[in-house]
Amino acid sequence: MRRIKILISYKGGNFYGWQYQKEKRTVQGELEKRIKFITGENIRVTAAGRTDAGVHALGQTAHFDTFSALPDKDFLKAINSVLPADLGLNDLTTAFDSFHSTKDATERQYLYRIDYSGANPFTRGIVWRLRKKLNHSDMSKALLLLKGKHDFSSFCIAKSSDKNTFVDMRSAEITETGSGIVLFFAADRFLHKMLRSVVGMLYDIGRGKRDPDCFSEALLLKNRKYGGFTAPPDGLYLYRVLYSNEKAPFILSEFIKAVTGF
Amino acid sequence: MRRIKILISYKGGNFYGWQYQKEKRTVQGELEKRIKFITGENIRVTAAGRTDAGVHALGQTAHFDTFSALPDKDFLKAINSVLPADLGLNDLTTAFDSFHSTKDATERQYLYRIDYSGANPFTRGIVWRLRKKLNHSDMSKALLLLKGKHDFSSFCIAKSSDKNTFVDMRSAEITETGSGIVLFFAADRFLHKMLRSVVGMLYDIGRGKRDPDCFSEALLLKNRKYGGFTAPPDGLYLYRVLYSNEKAPFILSEFIKAVTGF
Repeated sequence: MRRIKILISYKGGNFYGWQYQKEKRTVQGELEKRIKFITGENIRVTAAGRTDAGVHALGQTAHFDTFSALPDKDFLKAINSVLPADLGLNDLTTAFDSFHSTKDATERQYLYRIDYSGANPFTRGIVWRLRKKLNHSDMSKALLLLKGKHDFSSFCIAKSSDKNTFVDMRSAEITETGSGIVLFFAADRFLHKMLRSVVGMLYDIGRGKRDPDCFSEALLLKNRKYGGFTAPPDGLYLYRVLYSNEKAPFILSEFIKAVTGF
Repeated sequence: MRRIKILISYKGGNFYGWQYQKEKRTVQGELEKRIKFITGENIRVTAAGRTDAGVHALGQTAHFDTFSALPDKDFLKAINSVLPADLGLNDLTTAFDSFHSTKDATERQYLYRIDYSGANPFTRGIVWRLRKKLNHSDMSKALLLLKGKHDFSSFCIAKSSDKNTFVDMRSAEITETGSGIVLFFAADRFLHKMLRSVVGMLYDIGRGKRDPDCFSEALLLKNRKYGGFTAPPDGLYLYRVLYSNEKAPFILSEFIKAVTGF
């Protein structure tokens, strides 16, 4: 028996999120079913981030145990050969037996992409498309207020299982791109639907409906009803999961290369 | 009655090509049906290039006649609001009554994209994915032989309706990108399946199965059986159609922006 660590990308639009659900197409469900084609085993895949329906991933990290003796490289190829088109493995390595993709993660990084370029069949479903340009300078000011350790109760859905609502937000940045923006968030952990709620409030700030300092108020009030509305999952990507407290800043060109191949 | 000129993008994977076919989903069929939602008219849309099943377009140009009095900007918005996700209008203008998207075109530009970056759910269907890197230097030498006015019979499918098989190839270039290549072709006209057959032979050159000078031979022999196999449609894009003999060189960053938004 050995423990396998995998890096996974997926386009979220046709999945009901990460977590296994009976009779629904989920990333976990597809992975477990497809890996069984290769090893014949009933495998349980555990991931660093349980992404919601429609949310994408570039560097989702997960682990599973197997009796398969396939060398890592061949195992990677074999699994990729049976995966559906919207799901791919970027890497597969044999890990220490004690490695745990969820518990060992020291940082999670997410991106949110907003695009203003109008009808584009090639980016449909992988950006949040807006007609009017937002005020990036106000959004940038607001993002500064999120940095540091805060209680994010106001950005956490009420029925959530998150008991600890403290998040150490290490980065919250806006980067302008050719035809839109990319928001970058890095933290030790994220609460359920927290980022889409943060982006919802940022949207209100960007279109002038709220002041840039409303984040301070929302964080203080610790009540979901002061949070923003929930932005669509289309723009959200689980970008990277870190395991060793290394520094890994956001570099736009790396994201562009990973998602477009350019 | 006025003549409308439109610029169209589409992701080709879910279309049986441009041309209307009864009971099949085609770009022309979808456009005519959707425009009827707006104007109530039975419209015939004529395009510069009748792309095959699976081929994409960024600047497909077409025209149609309408009695609608909608101002151009509103007309564009109205049509986009009823188009499916894999089809979009980039522009709509009222043209001269005599404008003809097919007959007036002075140059057509196509791109073919090859990618070596392995499993990527985000570029699936919009690149030709290859495992092994091709020899770009040999492909570049070979492309030089295509330039100028030649009889492309060897690259034209046998049952084709193309009677005139002469093509004035003005550009045939290879550009390296982050994780692959983009081939750029500009000519007065292209024969049916000609480019995919040219790319098929280029592939053989790039992987060392044929010499870079085999294009000279193939062009001289004027027989389809000396042509290459047909490369998949996934990598092929109708990029631009020119109408006034202007120069419009290929600029990689413009293509990247059009297709990715970055």
